[in-house]
Amino acid sequence: MLNTIDGYIIDLDGTVYKGKQLIDGAAEAVAFLKSRGKRIVFLSNRGNISRRMCCEKLTALGLDVAEEEIVLTSTVTARYLQRHMPGCRTWVLGEQGLKDELAAYGVKEAARPELADWLVITLHETLTYKELNDAFRAVRGGAKIIATNADKTFPGDDGDAIDVAGMIGAIVHSTDVQVEVTVGKPSSLMAEAALDVLGLPPERCMVIGDSLASDIELGQRAGMMTALVLTGSATREMAVAAAKQPDLVWNSLADVSTEMEKMV
Amino acid sequence: MLNTIDGYIIDLDGTVYKGKQLIDGAAEAVAFLKSRGKRIVFLSNRGNISRRMCCEKLTALGLDVAEEEIVLTSTVTARYLQRHMPGCRTWVLGEQGLKDELAAYGVKEAARPELADWLVITLHETLTYKELNDAFRAVRGGAKIIATNADKTFPGDDGDAIDVAGMIGAIVHSTDVQVEVTVGKPSSLMAEAALDVLGLPPERCMVIGDSLASDIELGQRAGMMTALVLTGSATREMAVAAAKQPDLVWNSLADVSTEMEKMV
Repeated sequence: MLNTIDGYIIDLDGTVYKGKQLIDGAAEAVAFLKSRGKRIVFLSNRGNISRRMCCEKLTALGLDVAEEEIVLTSTVTARYLQRHMPGCRTWVLGEQGLKDELAAYGVKEAARPELADWLVITLHETLTYKELNDAFRAVRGGAKIIATNADKTFPGDDGDAIDVAGMIGAIVHSTDVQVEVTVGKPSSLMAEAALDVLGLPPERCMVIGDSLASDIELGQRAGMMTALVLTGSATREMAVAAAKQPDLVWNSLADVSTEMEKMV
Repeated sequence: MLNTIDGYIIDLDGTVYKGKQLIDGAAEAVAFLKSRGKRIVFLSNRGNISRRMCCEKLTALGLDVAEEEIVLTSTVTARYLQRHMPGCRTWVLGEQGLKDELAAYGVKEAARPELADWLVITLHETLTYKELNDAFRAVRGGAKIIATNADKTFPGDDGDAIDVAGMIGAIVHSTDVQVEVTVGKPSSLMAEAALDVLGLPPERCMVIGDSLASDIELGQRAGMMTALVLTGSATREMAVAAAKQPDLVWNSLADVSTEMEKMV
């Protein structure tokens, strides 16, 4: 099956690394794919960092990767606003990484919350009440809501931690305004952005990730092959029990090279 | 009508003061009622302060008031947990005032979020991500949720600000656990606590407040006379349009003395 695949869409958290720790064999697997001339894009639901920050992290972990091979929800949110809402003014409930991606796509910030056309929400690990209140005021002032993703929880260094859903819930619940656009996997926005980077049709691409609900679902919706890795949130039992099972279940990303070597 | 009334349940924000400002004639009206031997209880949905803090504020504004004449949602939440959940361990997403009220009723704090039986949520104007995450972990660890109130917004010094509903939304949306108990007006918990302080049956009591949804509704549910004042969130038009109209509509709390003087 793998000999029809020229492009790999690889999830990051739970697939390449866990928190600050590289997953065994991940760097070698990426190097192996590149040595075989395969195209790669790393696709993550992280919206609070920029591609540059992400690239620095991956490089520090020993991966050979360029910024152009990384697509984050911060990236795709910026791209979406640039393309579909030209000239819009944004207010960010989130971190610098998202602001950097918006700036990279030329998306402007509003001078005050009340002047924003869009409130952009992402994970904000240094959130304060003041920032929450500014976001609230943006929406009360008429801003629509776009969220980089809607994850409820992420694996923090000391256990599961509250994710973007918390920030979204605070604003939605206090304003009664619903989220207009959620960018994160498994959305077609993310699939399209990844395929654009690869420059390949979906049937020649494979998604590798640890989440049935985001990675595998994204691949299946877009007509791509899918491989679930068991280094993150999912177990083999979950894969078997899934309504739509992944094409492959691997112990880890390292299996991609083992499987390709078998083929030869 | 007023000559059958011996106890007055008086709302604070929008009725006695607005932000840091006393409402014209409010102190005199309270003094007048006391001079006529009327019993008074101040009943507020504020859950982030203690009776002591509130009493200090009212005294500084020139009102003659004792701590025992104040009932806040922090007070009633503490009372509820003491009576109905004896021995329970709590985790607070909120401010010191609520912690003080819980301590006053002997309600214990859990040593860690994961050990809490109840998460108690109130307005938290110095909220941080860390505190939001601790609250999230309390609920993920099995704590039920009790909220002092569910107000979406309060009048801040520089405009409407995000209220408890924001804090509630963050936790509910990220954990999928619903709020078990909401204490604030118009709940019967608040009416009972106020009547206990007055030591009078509802038919001898009147509620005076600026909110149709919380003050007037509470009075009507409990079988008390109600007077809406127009110094806060409601207008005369809103009173006229209400499905269940208040018995009286006054320009301000000062009207209570004018009306009583007419009777004599």
